[in-house]
Amino acid sequence: MIPRYSRPEMAGLWGPETRFGLMIDVEIAFLEAIAKDKKIPAREIRALRSIKGPYAEAVLEKEKKSAHDVVALLQVVTDKLKRKKAPKVIQYLHYGLTSSDVLDTASALQMARTLDLLIEDWKKTIKAIRNLARRHAHTWMVGRTHGIHAEPTTFGLKAAGWHAEAKRNLARMIRAREECAYGKLSGAVGTYAHVSPALERRVLKKLGLTPESIATQVIPRDRYAGVYGAIVLSACAVERFATEIRHLQRSEVGEAAEPFGKGQKGSSAMPHKRNPVLCENLCGLARLIRGHAVPVLENVALWHERDISHSSVERVAFPDATILLDFMLNRFAGVAERLDVFPERMKKNLDDSLGLVFSQKTLLTLIDKGLGRPAAYDIVQRNAMRTWRERSDFKTELGRDEEVRELLSVRELDHIFDLKNYGKSVAQVLKKEGIL
Amino acid sequence: MIPRYSRPEMAGLWGPETRFGLMIDVEIAFLEAIAKDKKIPAREIRALRSIKGPYAEAVLEKEKKSAHDVVALLQVVTDKLKRKKAPKVIQYLHYGLTSSDVLDTASALQMARTLDLLIEDWKKTIKAIRNLARRHAHTWMVGRTHGIHAEPTTFGLKAAGWHAEAKRNLARMIRAREECAYGKLSGAVGTYAHVSPALERRVLKKLGLTPESIATQVIPRDRYAGVYGAIVLSACAVERFATEIRHLQRSEVGEAAEPFGKGQKGSSAMPHKRNPVLCENLCGLARLIRGHAVPVLENVALWHERDISHSSVERVAFPDATILLDFMLNRFAGVAERLDVFPERMKKNLDDSLGLVFSQKTLLTLIDKGLGRPAAYDIVQRNAMRTWRERSDFKTELGRDEEVRELLSVRELDHIFDLKNYGKSVAQVLKKEGIL
Amino acid sequence: MIPRYSRPEMAGLWGPETRFGLMIDVEIAFLEAIAKDKKIPAREIRALRSIKGPYAEAVLEKEKKSAHDVVALLQVVTDKLKRKKAPKVIQYLHYGLTSSDVLDTASALQMARTLDLLIEDWKKTIKAIRNLARRHAHTWMVGRTHGIHAEPTTFGLKAAGWHAEAKRNLARMIRAREECAYGKLSGAVGTYAHVSPALERRVLKKLGLTPESIATQVIPRDRYAGVYGAIVLSACAVERFATEIRHLQRSEVGEAAEPFGKGQKGSSAMPHKRNPVLCENLCGLARLIRGHAVPVLENVALWHERDISHSSVERVAFPDATILLDFMLNRFAGVAERLDVFPERMKKNLDDSLGLVFSQKTLLTLIDKGLGRPAAYDIVQRNAMRTWRERSDFKTELGRDEEVRELLSVRELDHIFDLKNYGKSVAQVLKKEGIL
Amino acid sequence: MIPRYSRPEMAGLWGPETRFGLMIDVEIAFLEAIAKDKKIPAREIRALRSIKGPYAEAVLEKEKKSAHDVVALLQVVTDKLKRKKAPKVIQYLHYGLTSSDVLDTASALQMARTLDLLIEDWKKTIKAIRNLARRHAHTWMVGRTHGIHAEPTTFGLKAAGWHAEAKRNLARMIRAREECAYGKLSGAVGTYAHVSPALERRVLKKLGLTPESIATQVIPRDRYAGVYGAIVLSACAVERFATEIRHLQRSEVGEAAEPFGKGQKGSSAMPHKRNPVLCENLCGLARLIRGHAVPVLENVALWHERDISHSSVERVAFPDATILLDFMLNRFAGVAERLDVFPERMKKNLDDSLGLVFSQKTLLTLIDKGLGRPAAYDIVQRNAMRTWRERSDFKTELGRDEEVRELLSVRELDHIFDLKNYGKSVAQVLKKEGIL
Repeated sequence: MIPRYSRPEMAGLWGPETRFGLMIDVEIAFLEAIAKDKKIPAREIRALRSIKGPYAEAVLEKEKKSAHDVVALLQVVTDKLKRKKAPKVIQYLHYGLTSSDVLDTASALQMARTLDLLIEDWKKTIKAIRNLARRHAHTWMVGRTHGIHAEPTTFGLKAAGWHAEAKRNLARMIRAREECAYGKLSGAVGTYAHVSPALERRVLKKLGLTPESIATQVIPRDRYAGVYGAIVLSACAVERFATEIRHLQRSEVGEAAEPFGKGQKGSSAMPHKRNPVLCENLCGLARLIRGHAVPVLENVALWHERDISHSSVERVAFPDATILLDFMLNRFAGVAERLDVFPERMKKNLDDSLGLVFSQKTLLTLIDKGLGRPAAYDIVQRNAMRTWRERSDFKTELGRDEEVRELLSVRELDHIFDLKNYGKSVAQVLKKEGIL
Repeated sequence: MIPRYSRPEMAGLWGPETRFGLMIDVEIAFLEAIAKDKKIPAREIRALRSIKGPYAEAVLEKEKKSAHDVVALLQVVTDKLKRKKAPKVIQYLHYGLTSSDVLDTASALQMARTLDLLIEDWKKTIKAIRNLARRHAHTWMVGRTHGIHAEPTTFGLKAAGWHAEAKRNLARMIRAREECAYGKLSGAVGTYAHVSPALERRVLKKLGLTPESIATQVIPRDRYAGVYGAIVLSACAVERFATEIRHLQRSEVGEAAEPFGKGQKGSSAMPHKRNPVLCENLCGLARLIRGHAVPVLENVALWHERDISHSSVERVAFPDATILLDFMLNRFAGVAERLDVFPERMKKNLDDSLGLVFSQKTLLTLIDKGLGRPAAYDIVQRNAMRTWRERSDFKTELGRDEEVRELLSVRELDHIFDLKNYGKSVAQVLKKEGIL
Repeated sequence: MIPRYSRPEMAGLWGPETRFGLMIDVEIAFLEAIAKDKKIPAREIRALRSIKGPYAEAVLEKEKKSAHDVVALLQVVTDKLKRKKAPKVIQYLHYGLTSSDVLDTASALQMARTLDLLIEDWKKTIKAIRNLARRHAHTWMVGRTHGIHAEPTTFGLKAAGWHAEAKRNLARMIRAREECAYGKLSGAVGTYAHVSPALERRVLKKLGLTPESIATQVIPRDRYAGVYGAIVLSACAVERFATEIRHLQRSEVGEAAEPFGKGQKGSSAMPHKRNPVLCENLCGLARLIRGHAVPVLENVALWHERDISHSSVERVAFPDATILLDFMLNRFAGVAERLDVFPERMKKNLDDSLGLVFSQKTLLTLIDKGLGRPAAYDIVQRNAMRTWRERSDFKTELGRDEEVRELLSVRELDHIFDLKNYGKSVAQVLKKEGIL
Repeated sequence: MIPRYSRPEMAGLWGPETRFGLMIDVEIAFLEAIAKDKKIPAREIRALRSIKGPYAEAVLEKEKKSAHDVVALLQVVTDKLKRKKAPKVIQYLHYGLTSSDVLDTASALQMARTLDLLIEDWKKTIKAIRNLARRHAHTWMVGRTHGIHAEPTTFGLKAAGWHAEAKRNLARMIRAREECAYGKLSGAVGTYAHVSPALERRVLKKLGLTPESIATQVIPRDRYAGVYGAIVLSACAVERFATEIRHLQRSEVGEAAEPFGKGQKGSSAMPHKRNPVLCENLCGLARLIRGHAVPVLENVALWHERDISHSSVERVAFPDATILLDFMLNRFAGVAERLDVFPERMKKNLDDSLGLVFSQKTLLTLIDKGLGRPAAYDIVQRNAMRTWRERSDFKTELGRDEEVRELLSVRELDHIFDLKNYGKSVAQVLKKEGIL
């Protein structure tokens, strides 16, 4: 991923040194497990553990010849070991393992780490959303369906909806973390020809992984696709939140605005021109993450015990998507934390509906008074129509309507138009969600 | 979905009558919950319950005017009710509900049913795979990576890998069943303005659903996308199994063949022309299901409290994908049950590698004898090269090699080339997987 | 595709009878071409031409046995022919052809027809857009970038942008029509083993098709994917136009509204609730069409001389996408024709920017007066800031600014804020586009 | 894109310095066009032309403050200019332009260059394929449908099919080159408020670009998506060719093998283990390119006169896809040039069909002899069945069949089984394709 959309925290986890380090960790764990059986001195394994990178450049050099990255890394490690007097380690390094045993097991470790970071990201984001929802628990605004005013809601409830979706995505991410933490040492075609299931279990346990029940040469790729499913849903969630802010920020709505740097330009000549560029960017990034979803799914159907067509997809899609999502979550958390919210404008927009957002409540009250639904409808409709035509006020029109006056007291009418009645359940919901 | 790829069992669940029936179930459950409060006689609710479809045609007729399907259904129901003397039900039908309360709650019920069927499909498929794996637990064949012979495996182990992937997908499907079983009655913008959370809980419980913690006008669409994630992974699994069979059936491999009808034509003149058309078809269908994955993800970011752009996607993608997957699983279960497997050909192909598939075992045995890895490599390589060049036999060549003769006894050499050594772990793995 | 989104004009082109009819047309054209050589009497060919469908049911019945649709159709045709005394036709029917020769050639004819219809659809849509653009060539409104007011534009220019995009898509569709009009009769693996290139050329010419230069058993599938590329871009164009209308129709903007049926409901109680449901629907349908893009691309890489994995994708994706696009274009043409446009509201929204939309013009004029860009910026910015802070009027503020007064005459200031200056080029552009 | 899949030739075109250089080229072309009118000395423009990068680091630094890359670049350029005494250029730099005028016009130049390189790549690839096809014009092998032996073909004809597809893709690429070469200087919302259409035309002509007929703030994104359509189809073509080679190289087929480096490892112990890793990699890369297709299509529907959601997609998708495709074409050209082809193995595999691949020819000859199709079928079928059952030879069986002996002379039978008859048309086709 290009630096513009990368945070070093995540990008670092995908660096070649991280990867080579993890591959060596797998080799070490394996040597430790066979040490007793193969009489490998603990001192020698310590020697292996003590060798240090960077490996990337040397490996790349060797790979030019062998066209095989695991072979190249082993050569580099062996070269470094020669100076350390560790003949037994050299003899038994990678003994009985196939490259994929090391690669896929290291990948599991690596993916688990990136998911750990995304889990932290979501927690941070959830906190920012929760604070926002709490601050505006009772900030009334108009709820909109189809972009058209519908009924009153509060900005806190809107944000609470994000909160709930964010929590669902956190749960998905945690499940993905479990789904990916599987390793395998079952050899070239998964038959445990050279490493027993028991030995595999021992090595993987040390690494914090579960053995794959049945592998081919590789970990089955539906695991990877399952993990990607959690990543892409997280991106879509951020897209939804960002889309909302873009709408709220448009000139005619003006109910919220994403944070704006002090020296930020482009708008210097047009002070109203505070563009929701961060949120627009988040929408674009979600598209990119969605794009990799299908390639990752195409990777599932490898040929026979494996082909290597999936490798290039994974070298690009997983770093790209996790780096982007990490960036998105951090960017969005920042937006949520420092979002400018304009309650007066929210109030004004709500009022612009002339009270018609209370029409369903009116209808239901009339039905409760014993009116049939069609009769109640007629009353509501004719008053609504008049209100809209004359740009007057729905409550006033109802108050003037003879039929309504007969059925409803002033107090009952007030009750219909009182936001407090909407507020009661909202508060209850926010409490249940842990926001209030 | 076109009839060619539809089974009536699943297609029926998506029919309009099923849908309208579920919508009425939601209305009934709601009326029952408010019956006491609104004094609706039990008799009247029974009257509602007694009305019968078909509704589709009448609804379509009404919808032409109102351009609103829920409104149209309510009109049709009310018309039918008029003959039944149920004034209270007519008065309170849909009272305080918004269309989406009914639609999305009914959708949850509908989707749950389709997932129940897919769960059954997977169970059936798993059983067929298990039997296949069991039958061929010890049928040796060559394992292939990159399409090239690698090491021996058994066909049972291969099928066991499918078994494990199938079980993972069954688990995903069960989780999806849970993920979708959420309803909502929280009204036009999710504020519970007209229906309280407690009432919602009561109604949904009766329907076997959980209340959505925070909804907008609609159930948040990440649930739907989450469900789709399970569907698409299932399709990719079938694609993987089908791809394997296509490979095994090709003329030069000939190790297996999908079942072939007695009168099946096209091949009449060329008896060798038994084409794996069922499995090819399964691969194509997986593509179709993958295709809908992104639209469903694009549905997550609805505008404000909802727009209706998602509706058309859902009207097509969910019936299509579930109908196709149901078809795929049933077709594949049939293929697995009646797959023709040719053990002699498997044996022949394995032998065609001239014993070279045992080269890693040879290498490791030489290392165990104290040889350094490079020295061991040299021995293996020169004998392998000679074997390949002269199309002779690897074991024979090794047996003739002076250096090998010094290091390995005849018995040790036999041991290297004995499939039984590979078989031990395979049996263990198959037992753990519940196949043996 | 479900009836809800199907017009009979397009759906009919995909019906089985249409398809079988085209396949028989191919067989007839072939028989005519070999008639002289094989001594097939013209009368017999006329007999073949005179047989009539419906075929679908009978073919389906036969297909149950043979599992091969071409074989089944030939059987049905032969049965019908038996009553017609046409022994030579029966003898030479399908002589030397492979099923795909007939299928793919018929597909080319079928696809060409669907594209012809889409070409008509685009022409109709272009006309509707042109009329709209013409009507509002000089209807001023605010142009928006990032959803924020930017500079004045006219609604006619906006629609002219649609016009230009529509024309590009029409051109793509015409090119797609050419791209798909290729047939092949080169046999089982494209070697012309039984039919010569010259004979193929003669038959295809009669059908209005070009011979594929090199086919396998089938027409190469990049042609199909190329055609799909035109379809999906058309859908995205409609999505863009529909998205614009959704924005213009939202409560706070209110500049346009899609047509609304007289009896249309849902809004009965809330007269402001005219929801842009047609345009939202168009956006959803575009997602569906995008979804099939990748499966169609996956179809390109068939195995060897062909496998049949593409078939199921094509049976679904092409009917679905063309039926949906036909529906979309007709729906959008209707929206464009009967779009409600509210010029006063456009004017009001434009005015709400307090004249700041003229800030760049101010800046440039000051630079022309010899000011450096930074100095000019300062002047514009301080006046813009004051205007925005005090919700006053930019022109008035500039008029009060000492420095501005020194540099600009009242007339020059008037000139800056005169929409006519923007209008001149707009008219010129619209003329060039053929709108004025 | 990661270095592993990048060639410097293409990666360089996407580097920031290239981009900034092109942006300055646009500014220069504009200044030249207004020089006379605004009295900007030629000397000053030369001064601007003489300033040199690198810009990237300085721009990034400035961008941190302004969050706007064009503004940042202009600041850097202005700073450099200050030392050059070019006050008029400083005054009129970017005069009347909006950022997107420069960005999108520069993008057109940049994209055109990348397409030029891809056009060269395709030409090189076409040449390699042509040579391959020519070398093996008459190398007989079995053609396969559904992975099953069908009829004889030649490897040259197979490669000629690639050739034809490659040429179609070259044509698409050339059309994409035209489609993208559009610039715009029509300002903030495309109204030509500050730059006239005539001036725009003059500037763009100098840059080798055509003016966009109607732009918003930006070039309409269907152009970009159209270009992407050509890129993704090219990738799918390479995937198809690579898939073929993977199949031909599998152990049981062994008809071709991708080039293999001298020191290439992994196979040291198993000389038969020459894995088609290059071609597998090409298949994976095609998936990646397909993945970006949908995001690029989602970019079409920008909001109003533009939002910036498309930008992040384009910053990633276009470099990624063009870099990958450039890599793929070069890699595939290398594979095609140095592909190992094994004619003897092709001959052997062809022979393994026992002559049954000539069954259709037999059938047609019998029909020509006056037999009805069913009668001819019977004869072919019974002989084919016997051949297959007894693993004998189809020609021999036919020669022994009484009924056949009556109908066909030995010479006629020889004729049926003579590959030369297939070869005639093949040669003709290859000539027409420009291969022979």
